[in-house]
Amino acid sequence: MPTAPQAAAPILSLPSRSQRAGSAKTSPVRDLLALTARPEVISFAGGLPAPELFDVEGIRAAFDAVLDSPGVLQYSTSEGDPGLRDAVARRYSSDGLPTAASDLIVTTGSQQGLGLISTTLVDPGDTILVEEPCYLAALQTFALAGARVVGVPYVGDDLDLDALDRLAAHHGPKFFYTVPTFQNPTGRTHDVEARRTIAAIAQRRGFRIVEDEPYRQLRYSGDALPSLAAFAPGHVISLGSFSKVIAPGLRIGWIRTTADIRSSITIAKQAADLHTSTIDQAAAAHYLASGRGELTLSRIREAYAARRDAMLEMLPSALPDGSSWNRPDGGMFVWVRLPEGRDAASALPAALAHDVAFVPGTSFFSGIPDERTLRLSFTTYSPARIREGLSRLGATWGTGR
Amino acid sequence: MPTAPQAAAPILSLPSRSQRAGSAKTSPVRDLLALTARPEVISFAGGLPAPELFDVEGIRAAFDAVLDSPGVLQYSTSEGDPGLRDAVARRYSSDGLPTAASDLIVTTGSQQGLGLISTTLVDPGDTILVEEPCYLAALQTFALAGARVVGVPYVGDDLDLDALDRLAAHHGPKFFYTVPTFQNPTGRTHDVEARRTIAAIAQRRGFRIVEDEPYRQLRYSGDALPSLAAFAPGHVISLGSFSKVIAPGLRIGWIRTTADIRSSITIAKQAADLHTSTIDQAAAAHYLASGRGELTLSRIREAYAARRDAMLEMLPSALPDGSSWNRPDGGMFVWVRLPEGRDAASALPAALAHDVAFVPGTSFFSGIPDERTLRLSFTTYSPARIREGLSRLGATWGTGR
Repeated sequence: MPTAPQAAAPILSLPSRSQRAGSAKTSPVRDLLALTARPEVISFAGGLPAPELFDVEGIRAAFDAVLDSPGVLQYSTSEGDPGLRDAVARRYSSDGLPTAASDLIVTTGSQQGLGLISTTLVDPGDTILVEEPCYLAALQTFALAGARVVGVPYVGDDLDLDALDRLAAHHGPKFFYTVPTFQNPTGRTHDVEARRTIAAIAQRRGFRIVEDEPYRQLRYSGDALPSLAAFAPGHVISLGSFSKVIAPGLRIGWIRTTADIRSSITIAKQAADLHTSTIDQAAAAHYLASGRGELTLSRIREAYAARRDAMLEMLPSALPDGSSWNRPDGGMFVWVRLPEGRDAASALPAALAHDVAFVPGTSFFSGIPDERTLRLSFTTYSPARIREGLSRLGATWGTGR
Repeated sequence: MPTAPQAAAPILSLPSRSQRAGSAKTSPVRDLLALTARPEVISFAGGLPAPELFDVEGIRAAFDAVLDSPGVLQYSTSEGDPGLRDAVARRYSSDGLPTAASDLIVTTGSQQGLGLISTTLVDPGDTILVEEPCYLAALQTFALAGARVVGVPYVGDDLDLDALDRLAAHHGPKFFYTVPTFQNPTGRTHDVEARRTIAAIAQRRGFRIVEDEPYRQLRYSGDALPSLAAFAPGHVISLGSFSKVIAPGLRIGWIRTTADIRSSITIAKQAADLHTSTIDQAAAAHYLASGRGELTLSRIREAYAARRDAMLEMLPSALPDGSSWNRPDGGMFVWVRLPEGRDAASALPAALAHDVAFVPGTSFFSGIPDERTLRLSFTTYSPARIREGLSRLGATWGTGR
């Protein structure tokens, strides 16, 4: 084995990191995950799907079936597995949004989709509009692209559409990033009229919409809503993911792109990682074709609906008087606002002392945070455990509940 | 199912793509792969490992073994599977480069490593030095980062170290990107003295080195050479990959980073795709621990050595008189220079008419290309088939051979 020679030359200081690296100061999701590490803690802080609902046997069978030839171990195309893209396209089409497999580019989770779209559309200094509050890791990706991120506020549970119009006119954004259905962190959904208006504003002001839909299929009540892409087909890029409906460890998502930027996004994908795991894509396609995906999704919906209901039933006794919260029709999260004078971050140490955790809402804001807000996830515990956790939470507020 | 409402608003023109998206004009690897599509073509144009050497059974067994609990289907940490990082660290250390698992960040193929390093170190307009010619997809990634790419020329088969020093002094690059062992496209290797000098220049001029080592383990003759990181530990970031030694479809590579940028690279990784496939990482770790990886690598080395030898034996009769080429000790490629007056791109249609393909060297240059060069890959055919392909190639030159 060769041995390491000694370096003798004088050493100059190294070049600094990029400005954009400096702008992504912290890694908030990681900090949050650290809260959940103690096993005795009932953590409503996570954003994870419930692992006991993963169809381990079905997925193992799918890997076993596709690993019968070397083709699934070889390099493949940047756009992704044709069978997988076809299956996703058929689902969009049957949901009322005509889609061809060629409209889709498979990504390494929908998180990668955010990066590819940023690479394709955003130069440093460009503006991106986001919902305020917004999905954390999107804010990070946009910061690393050097974007100027401007939050569009809510009025109560509804996006302030006048503010969207005004901010778009003022900033000339490259796009508006939205999680229109069961948003992370708020669980909020834009109703059909809001969708129609958002699309119309995008068309009138000449910006794109990036609609991120990881939770769309996790609906437990109410009717399905049309995709934003149905209202403004040329203006909307949609992201989807199997992370919440099959398993996140597969890291498979997709971009439903518009024709004008398809080749640019494909080049960005190639530069990013050449392509997504050939094996994982083939196994996912096989799994969907087996029909087990629909069964698993029904099981997930049923379990999460019961968990949501357990949380909503218990919240009145678990939160200080004067708190407010929403009642989402799906997804993974409930958004809470504490009464005047309360601060969620200040309440967290007491909660952790009672072995229960939540996420203070402040981390999700791109601008001035609402310190009274917090996010609760209801996905990973049984209804009984949720009740126990919320009972602990109820004990943390001390006097003045 | 919801139906798509009609859009009524007037439609403004959409915002343009980013400048950096515009700078990545084409997708050269994809264009090349198109050359190999006709089954009757013997293609030396590819850069693929030989699929018949993949250990499909061993890899299937590894997936089967790890898919026994839902943990491998869940989200995991951005840095990667601890067992996998530990196995890679032990291999570096036993090769003479002391490495801790915490020095390593698992990436979705080493291609992703190039992007994460660019995100961490490069702002638009910054200079990156590369070898001239250089790995294509690296040039694409650097273009998408908005970098100014400057090529360092070779003198014969040796990098022009005076030029490296001069260009570094002139441009103040963020880093020098090198494939030091069995380079793509040239098969060239920097010898130990060149490595020592490159490291010393980096230390004197204050730039980093990004050493990309996908082919390091594919050595068929000669002695192993020390990593550049052994000469200038604080200045060198190393990339590695299982694509050529286990299978590329897994998309597993890694960054061996320096301490000063570790947290920034981790944040960039999280923003890029949260983490690499949990399943694929667990299967790779299990596969390495099974000991089958070393057996497979021996089998690959033996087969590729015979293929390289078949190519080198046949080249004198397959190329025009006055051609020159190198004799690499490993890797996948031989680099050919045609005699004065020949142009590789012009010769390609005749080769394709004879059902044989190669890559003209021009695509691999960041600056002025040497139009007499071409790249031949020897990995994917048996020695007999290589002889047949080169015999066809010999028939394409017409008069004046």
